Amino acid sequence: MKTYNIPLVPGPVSVPVKFREAYLTDFGSSDLEKDFYDLLKENQGLLKKILNTENSVTIQSGEAMLVLWGALKSTVKPKDRVLALSNGLFGHGLGEMAGSLGAEVRYIEAADGSFIDEDILERELISFRPDFVTAVHCETPSGLLNPIGEIAPMIKESGALFCVDFVASAAGTDVRVDEWGIDLGLLGSQKCLSLLPDLSVLTMSERAWRAAERVNYFGYDAVLPWRNAEDKMEMPCTHNWHANAAMNLSLRSLLEEGLENSFRRHREVAEYCRSRISEMGLELYAKEIKLASPTVTAVKVPFGWTWTQLDRSLREQGMAVGGSYGLLAGKVFRIGHMGSQADKQLVEKGMDVLEKVLNK
Amino acid sequence: MKTYNIPLVPGPVSVPVKFREAYLTDFGSSDLEKDFYDLLKENQGLLKKILNTENSVTIQSGEAMLVLWGALKSTVKPKDRVLALSNGLFGHGLGEMAGSLGAEVRYIEAADGSFIDEDILERELISFRPDFVTAVHCETPSGLLNPIGEIAPMIKESGALFCVDFVASAAGTDVRVDEWGIDLGLLGSQKCLSLLPDLSVLTMSERAWRAAERVNYFGYDAVLPWRNAEDKMEMPCTHNWHANAAMNLSLRSLLEEGLENSFRRHREVAEYCRSRISEMGLELYAKEIKLASPTVTAVKVPFGWTWTQLDRSLREQGMAVGGSYGLLAGKVFRIGHMGSQADKQLVEKGMDVLEKVLNK
Repeated sequence: MKTYNIPLVPGPVSVPVKFREAYLTDFGSSDLEKDFYDLLKENQGLLKKILNTENSVTIQSGEAMLVLWGALKSTVKPKDRVLALSNGLFGHGLGEMAGSLGAEVRYIEAADGSFIDEDILERELISFRPDFVTAVHCETPSGLLNPIGEIAPMIKESGALFCVDFVASAAGTDVRVDEWGIDLGLLGSQKCLSLLPDLSVLTMSERAWRAAERVNYFGYDAVLPWRNAEDKMEMPCTHNWHANAAMNLSLRSLLEEGLENSFRRHREVAEYCRSRISEMGLELYAKEIKLASPTVTAVKVPFGWTWTQLDRSLREQGMAVGGSYGLLAGKVFRIGHMGSQADKQLVEKGMDVLEKVLNK
Repeated sequence: MKTYNIPLVPGPVSVPVKFREAYLTDFGSSDLEKDFYDLLKENQGLLKKILNTENSVTIQSGEAMLVLWGALKSTVKPKDRVLALSNGLFGHGLGEMAGSLGAEVRYIEAADGSFIDEDILERELISFRPDFVTAVHCETPSGLLNPIGEIAPMIKESGALFCVDFVASAAGTDVRVDEWGIDLGLLGSQKCLSLLPDLSVLTMSERAWRAAERVNYFGYDAVLPWRNAEDKMEMPCTHNWHANAAMNLSLRSLLEEGLENSFRRHREVAEYCRSRISEMGLELYAKEIKLASPTVTAVKVPFGWTWTQLDRSLREQGMAVGGSYGLLAGKVFRIGHMGSQADKQLVEKGMDVLEKVLNK
């Protein structure tokens, strides 16, 4: 399907036309114009508010995987000890990436649908003495929102650099980069910001910049050339003015709504989604309700159905949801209610279709 | 300036509204939809026609520097011998990138405004025995179109892999990837295709793929994960459907016009531009007219002017042209007449303004 009548994929989300209209301006050259750099700085400032940080924020052209790889390649050295907190594909993947860079990686794996054990974390911090701890805030493929705030003090105390992927949570739920001591934080445009998948955001603490200086990694995805690039008006490549203009509309709209209001909207829609799911006799993947993400709900594929059948039946009604990946492929389906899709009416329509399809 | 009344920057070029309108569709998920992969394959097919190649074509999300770095990192090994043909900033830069990857780099530098000496090339191919030869087709910062077709047989015979940046020439002038034996070819969206700077294109020969397999480089910008990714319907990251839809409109429009007609349009506009420049008593940077690119005209900043003054005066009339970089910064200004800007009326308007400003 080119477009969805009922878009409930957990990103890329439906992009409101009022944001897409930014692409209708025939912008000049982002290499040359002060207007562009002013816009970029404004976006960085707005992102700082949303992420509760005084750390530097860089906005790069390209998809979120870009900053993920770029951040790790720029700060992890071979032989660095990396502790990867994993309760899903992305958490595990962060460890694998670090491993492929020559780091010594230890994983803390959680039980199905749960978060890692804090006692094990404490033990590993003491015995393994990691240089890095990696974690995912919203583990999208399993619909889990991990309690980063709760484990943050322990990691801060350990002195390790803390790298957190909040791609599918930030702007839909509280992310406190400074309070939680997040040294490297990652955000994409196509999730709660309701934009195209054309921009990537990275927050970097001073400690993280110092690590990047030590590693001195170079290449398209290196972070160092982005440092203060807007002040020098010299980007490592031609930036995407249109995408930044759309991002500006999205960030402003979010702050006009009010962050707390956006979080409440996400929470209420998620609660509504879960209550309908439970009424239908379906089972959440999350073991505890407090781990269920307000941005995406992961549900076990019901008995008697395959994911393919369910997907096909929903699509016949113009509804698109997500499947999952890795170990959860075929076992879990996901309802994305983030950003523009954190909309009670939309999710109601979707749940009505799901109910109808399951009762047929 | 946010928008230009008279856009003559040598890329990013003015994007016609009929292409930008592609961003108004609320596309579904490019991770999931066959419709997206069909579009991607169609674009790859259209690009093959435009580039005259049967080699594989990958389209990545992000700016053209992405594929440039990605292609080199994916195929160049430390100690590889790389011969960089340079008559400008970009040609030299390709060598520097290879050098930073640990390659042994030798440069052939051309005299100001000229192309390299073919006898020197022949000698170096025999004595240095490069694994790689890098070249730039349109050396944008100096407005030169290098005779890649003429030196191609020599490079083919040497057995070196041939890497050519045709970012600012392809679609505006003839590029013959297969005939010229180009193993790695690079194209961006924001030049002759008249699109946003959001997509990068890479052509790879079978020899180049084998080199990539040997190097086995990994990361966001690695080329291997893109190989046949559209057949597996598994992209290394969420692709940009909107940008691909816009690219489709641009590629179709180009083939409707006819490639030969597009080349003629570029040639005629460039000739007109140069004749006006010469009437004004200004001097081209290109030493020989056959080296002057049909996509961008580089002109020496006239006596009695600084680049800053000239730029400011033109901007007061709503006209934007390009300065230059490196050794040519402040010495050369550039009129970009590529893609949508290869338009006689537009360039006429621009030349009238330039004349008026210079005569004031």
